[in-house]
Amino acid sequence: MNSQEEVKNFITNGHKVYLKHLSIDCVIFGYHEHQLKVLLLKNKGGYWSVAGGFIKHEETLQEAATRILAERTGLDKLFLQQFQTFGEPGRSIRTDEQVKALSDIAKAPIAKNHWLLERTLSLGYYAVTEYSKVNPKADYFSETSEWRDIDNLPPMVFDHKLIVTEALKALRMQIYHQPIGFNLLPEKFTLPEIHDLYETILGKKLDRRNFPKKLMALGLIKKLDEQKKIGAHRSPYLYKFDKRRYDKALKEGIVLAF
Amino acid sequence: MNSQEEVKNFITNGHKVYLKHLSIDCVIFGYHEHQLKVLLLKNKGGYWSVAGGFIKHEETLQEAATRILAERTGLDKLFLQQFQTFGEPGRSIRTDEQVKALSDIAKAPIAKNHWLLERTLSLGYYAVTEYSKVNPKADYFSETSEWRDIDNLPPMVFDHKLIVTEALKALRMQIYHQPIGFNLLPEKFTLPEIHDLYETILGKKLDRRNFPKKLMALGLIKKLDEQKKIGAHRSPYLYKFDKRRYDKALKEGIVLAF
Repeated sequence: MNSQEEVKNFITNGHKVYLKHLSIDCVIFGYHEHQLKVLLLKNKGGYWSVAGGFIKHEETLQEAATRILAERTGLDKLFLQQFQTFGEPGRSIRTDEQVKALSDIAKAPIAKNHWLLERTLSLGYYAVTEYSKVNPKADYFSETSEWRDIDNLPPMVFDHKLIVTEALKALRMQIYHQPIGFNLLPEKFTLPEIHDLYETILGKKLDRRNFPKKLMALGLIKKLDEQKKIGAHRSPYLYKFDKRRYDKALKEGIVLAF
Repeated sequence: MNSQEEVKNFITNGHKVYLKHLSIDCVIFGYHEHQLKVLLLKNKGGYWSVAGGFIKHEETLQEAATRILAERTGLDKLFLQQFQTFGEPGRSIRTDEQVKALSDIAKAPIAKNHWLLERTLSLGYYAVTEYSKVNPKADYFSETSEWRDIDNLPPMVFDHKLIVTEALKALRMQIYHQPIGFNLLPEKFTLPEIHDLYETILGKKLDRRNFPKKLMALGLIKKLDEQKKIGAHRSPYLYKFDKRRYDKALKEGIVLAF
């Protein structure tokens, strides 16, 4: 949506296009050298949120999540993964001020049974990207979009802080069962680089000897006959993912424990 | 629902009580000595399904799942865990025959926009129980309820076979991050007994030395100064869960890998 007119139409007629009672929220984690961030939008009313939207009647859930993320942030090609559905009865009650804002845009009163005021469950999706390589945009509803530190979230709308926290838990569990890093590290990387990726996502220290052994044992990474020149006395070996094994592991699952 | 009159009312007026577009399906796994089964209902039309139902307007999701399971099977006190939401656009299209059955009960034609014919997403929940210790009943809709072997499922309604398969995947991942067994094993058990529980759920062999070491290292089980008399030459030591550590692990999560 790019104009006031489109938003007015969305508020007035959205229930004909979208499934009632349902939304999707996308938690986008951004990794870059020792840092894990999350992409938040600040809407024009000053509320922070993750990128959310509604499901069209004919869309698959994956299509809806992909479209919503693209519409709201401009990001695409991310591997969005469903992790939990949030549905406490009072989770998305709009304040009087928020209802007034809807009414102002729609240029009409908002009835008590308006589709946007009904109880809404939200399907949570998450993805991880390298945040220095992407350029999220703010959409019509948003004043700005920002990569925020996961340990220092601003006050957020509805239950969005819970959604971020649960997404992080899901990611931290998933990392033991799915390979990660293919789009987050350079094509050739050092062991300290992949080690940092895992430690940063998990938020804890991992054994420096045991960690690469496990990845090697599963065949996910292989050592190259090539070193990275860092300084006169430091030239660690480079590694790369074994893409065939990596894709197989993505499909079939793995059990990692360091 | 226990009578034709109640079912008629449910079909005709259910949309006033339940959220449209949404259902809950409960996959109940049953463990007993080397066997993992799943509880299926066979409805009066001959279709097999897991225990499903709808969410009341004021209910939390956990309350809804618990109520649905109790209403449809008589089972309670199970720890139901949400694992995935299923929502392909065509996942729950009813056949002409199924629509006719609804119409026959409602004693009225079923309109194209009837609430039971709308696109419905289903929130999947699962639980594990000791199947020799519980007594599921068949409800009004069902001819019978049965514990079926997970490797030998009958043809099932809608996408229920997918729901069972995905629940099993989720359980097999969760078992590495959450302790299990407290209600599935006797209070005092032998290492082979808990080993069998894990192997049966995971559907694969686990290292006989490494396995108990991991559980001991996490403090989940402790060795008792007591042996089980199996025969003249076999008297393995008994173990029990450390309930305090077990509950802490349930809350905070663990990483097990054998």
